[in-house]
Amino acid sequence: MDTREFERVIMGIDPGTNVMGYGVLGIKGRKLTPVILGAIELNKVGDHYLRLARIYERVTGIIDQYLPDELAIEAPFYGKNVQSMLKLGRAQGVAMAAALARQIPIAEYAPLKVKQVVTGNGGASKEQVANMLCYILKMERDKLPSLLDATDAMAVALAHYYESGKPTAGTGAKNWAQFIKQHPDRIVGKTINNKQ
Amino acid sequence: MDTREFERVIMGIDPGTNVMGYGVLGIKGRKLTPVILGAIELNKVGDHYLRLARIYERVTGIIDQYLPDELAIEAPFYGKNVQSMLKLGRAQGVAMAAALARQIPIAEYAPLKVKQVVTGNGGASKEQVANMLCYILKMERDKLPSLLDATDAMAVALAHYYESGKPTAGTGAKNWAQFIKQHPDRIVGKTINNKQ
Repeated sequence: MDTREFERVIMGIDPGTNVMGYGVLGIKGRKLTPVILGAIELNKVGDHYLRLARIYERVTGIIDQYLPDELAIEAPFYGKNVQSMLKLGRAQGVAMAAALARQIPIAEYAPLKVKQVVTGNGGASKEQVANMLCYILKMERDKLPSLLDATDAMAVALAHYYESGKPTAGTGAKNWAQFIKQHPDRIVGKTINNKQ
Repeated sequence: MDTREFERVIMGIDPGTNVMGYGVLGIKGRKLTPVILGAIELNKVGDHYLRLARIYERVTGIIDQYLPDELAIEAPFYGKNVQSMLKLGRAQGVAMAAALARQIPIAEYAPLKVKQVVTGNGGASKEQVANMLCYILKMERDKLPSLLDATDAMAVALAHYYESGKPTAGTGAKNWAQFIKQHPDRIVGKTINNKQ
C-alpha cells in the first residue's frame, strides 16, 4: 500500500527483547486505515546483538517502506530487575535510533495509558485491547497475526493519534507538526523532541 | 588523520546518559596510535530524545570518519535502579545501532574488566586508568580532554585490542575477522556477532 495517499502516517511499535510488535496507521480526514501490523519473534535469534540488529533492520525497513510521520512507542518504565531493564532499554534505543536517523519524532506511552486511551480502561487485558482495536479499525480478529504484540503496537499508534490529534480537531491542520507551527500559543506543556 | 594506513582500527565508547566518551585506536604491527579521543557532554542537551539523537549522530559521524573495524563498549551490567538502567540501556542501544547499521561487530566489557586488562588491577581509579593509558599510548596527560570519560573510552578500545588480539599473535592474521576465517578450529567459545 502506498502510504503517500494519507494525510498522516503513525508507526507504532512495542519493542520487547523477545518479540517486537509493529503497526502502521494511515489517517485521511476522519478515516483510519490499518496499513500493516505484525510481530517479529526474536526468541528464534540466539545472539543478543543479532536481536538488536534485527530490530534495527526491521524498524528501518518499515520506516523506508511506509514513510511514517511519527513513531509511537509503548514503553514500560518499570520492570522486574535492572538486568531486564537494561535489555529492554537497548531494544528501545535501537528502535528509537532508526527513527532518530530519519528525524522522525518519537512519542512514548506507558502500557496503562495505551489501554486507557484505546479501551477506556487502564486495566484492560491484551485481548480486550485487540478486540476494541478490531472494532475501531474494522479489522477481522481472526485474520490478524496471532501474537498480541502486533495489536499492542497498533494500539499505541492509535493512542498517539487520539492523544496528539485532540487539539488539532477543527483547526484544519494537516498534522501535529503543522498544528504546532500554526498555533504555538496553544502548546503549553513540553512537546515531543522539542528542547525547552 | 587517515585511518586507512592502519591494519586495524578499534573504536571505544563509554556511553552514559550524562557524558559519552569516545576514542579511536589505530593499530599497525605492534604500534598503537591514539587517533582521537573526546567526550560529549549530554547534560547540556535538555531533552531525552535529543540526547539519544546526539549520541547516534556522533557515533555515526566518528564511524564514517575513522572507519573502525570493531566497536568496543564499556557496559556496566548493574546499576542503582531500574529507571537508570533503562536510560543507560537506551544510550547503549542507540550507540550500538550506529555500529549495527554498518555491520561493525560489537564487543562489550564491564568496567572492572577494562581496568583489569589495562592496569592489572580491577579496582583501579579512573585517574590510574588514564595515567596507564598515557604511558602505554605515549600521550601527554595534560594535553588530553579533561573528562575522564574520554580516557575510559580509549581504555575499552585498548582492552579490546589486548583481549581479542591475544590468539592472533604470530599468526600473521591482519585482524580478528581474518584470524577467525583462517583458524576456525581455534575458536572455542562464543564469538562476537556470531549465531551459534
